[in-house]
Amino acid sequence: MNEFELIARLTCALPTNESVVVGAGDDCAVLDVGLGDRWLLFKTDAVVQGIHFTADVPPEKIGRKALARCMSDIAAMAGTPTAAVVTIALPQNFVPELVEQIYVGLNALATQHGVAVVGGETTTNPAGLLISVALIGFVPRGKALLRSGAQVGDAIFVTGELGGSLVGRHLEFEPRLAEARWLVAHFAIHSLMDVSDGLAGDLRHLLSASRVGALLHKSAVPISRAAKAAARKGDAAKPAFVAALTDGEDFELLFTVASRDAVPLLDAWKEKFPGLKLSCIGKIIAGEGIQLRDQTGIRPLTAHGYVHFS
Amino acid sequence: MNEFELIARLTCALPTNESVVVGAGDDCAVLDVGLGDRWLLFKTDAVVQGIHFTADVPPEKIGRKALARCMSDIAAMAGTPTAAVVTIALPQNFVPELVEQIYVGLNALATQHGVAVVGGETTTNPAGLLISVALIGFVPRGKALLRSGAQVGDAIFVTGELGGSLVGRHLEFEPRLAEARWLVAHFAIHSLMDVSDGLAGDLRHLLSASRVGALLHKSAVPISRAAKAAARKGDAAKPAFVAALTDGEDFELLFTVASRDAVPLLDAWKEKFPGLKLSCIGKIIAGEGIQLRDQTGIRPLTAHGYVHFS
Repeated sequence: MNEFELIARLTCALPTNESVVVGAGDDCAVLDVGLGDRWLLFKTDAVVQGIHFTADVPPEKIGRKALARCMSDIAAMAGTPTAAVVTIALPQNFVPELVEQIYVGLNALATQHGVAVVGGETTTNPAGLLISVALIGFVPRGKALLRSGAQVGDAIFVTGELGGSLVGRHLEFEPRLAEARWLVAHFAIHSLMDVSDGLAGDLRHLLSASRVGALLHKSAVPISRAAKAAARKGDAAKPAFVAALTDGEDFELLFTVASRDAVPLLDAWKEKFPGLKLSCIGKIIAGEGIQLRDQTGIRPLTAHGYVHFS
Repeated sequence: MNEFELIARLTCALPTNESVVVGAGDDCAVLDVGLGDRWLLFKTDAVVQGIHFTADVPPEKIGRKALARCMSDIAAMAGTPTAAVVTIALPQNFVPELVEQIYVGLNALATQHGVAVVGGETTTNPAGLLISVALIGFVPRGKALLRSGAQVGDAIFVTGELGGSLVGRHLEFEPRLAEARWLVAHFAIHSLMDVSDGLAGDLRHLLSASRVGALLHKSAVPISRAAKAAARKGDAAKPAFVAALTDGEDFELLFTVASRDAVPLLDAWKEKFPGLKLSCIGKIIAGEGIQLRDQTGIRPLTAHGYVHFS
């Protein structure tokens, strides 16, 4: 049993009840709790020392990141976050100031977005610091944006620039909350998710949820300065384009919209968010998986095939 | 800065917003999210290998316990749990079946109480297994039972029997959800919490939240068979009564009610829940802290003074 088989088996077996609109599998769960005009969003996520941050990262940034990751998932449903609870598992030799500093970063981001922090547990974890955050939020009823709505012919967009996040941006990224809400308010967005595990992998999740394929234009994929700089230095494990496709922790928005809306959307975006790049990187096609078009033609992007494009 | 100073400092600094009715510090957070007739409850809790369970505990029981602890906090507000999200941090050499078995136990308890499991993350944790659960629930508007409502003259009650939970009960306890809802529906309960860190410590939390003291009757404190057996064997670190006061993980209900309601409540309880002991263990008095009455008189129970009563 591999990881994906395991997740599929687990997800099928999860208990449900009449409040569940969308259960596990999308960016957040969506619940109808009896609010006439809104649905509730519910999400948890964790950061672990040695995996999501190194021991030398200032604790303020770790706390901020733990909450920002969950906020990015609320953004990925076009929702608004409301309240968070936090579990901090601490190494046994921790100093109390460490916990305070974690909360300084977490609280600052919460305050910036009007989120209340309404509970916190601390426990010990011999291996090092682990922070788990659960976040609830709301979205107008019927307006939660799922991964499963992409349609053949849709234009595929991504915000920002991709790759190289681990150089620093993963500790400082802004969850795209305002951007997602603006998109939904002004355009008939068909599908939306955040890019957290790398564009290639996350786009595949969107495609399989929507039962469609995608044609990506290699030259349109926005590559971050960090990914380009790393590739130029020659110390990168992968070329810049591969980094943009496969590095994790971008926390940008990936969405699709009918092709007729693509140009008006780009124009309106530039006016509304002049500081944040928006790229049309390809289109939704029938079939499955990702096709990549570059100057030599069109080839399938296989699951582990990124290195072909070096 | 000690642990309690740290928690006090952290709690004061937490961001809030207009939805927060009760923030961190009680068993659950209470939020007014615009439901006319109900408030939302929100809680997180974690179990860690080596602290809340040992490596030889069957994974089904670990999963069950992780959810049951959060359910006990919902019970402690007299609420009804609705939906949970789960983070499982796994040692690097885990087998996928471990995760499946954790969910078997967790899902069974969720199903029993009509709770949907709507999201799950897995990550790695070199030290061993850690499970963090976040749970939302609801309580009729204005009916959340806090720790802060105890009044001088109240009778103090506790369900079940205390102490010795680590022998086995901590893996199998039933969250007192139905009992708490029944109490609130039939009596003017003044304050309520669950006993998770030991009666003496938890009662102190209730007293300081309510700004009152308590007089406990030593002979009325219900001591579990497990605590008595351990004390008889002579291999206990503490006598049975001390275990009942200070062992953690009882997950029973601790509540206060006006003294005039005490006898009717006991009578009605015996009829409704004949299988679950309910004990009146003392009364709320003016002042602060716990006074203990035994055959020799009344003495203060100091924070670390349990050993005086061996």
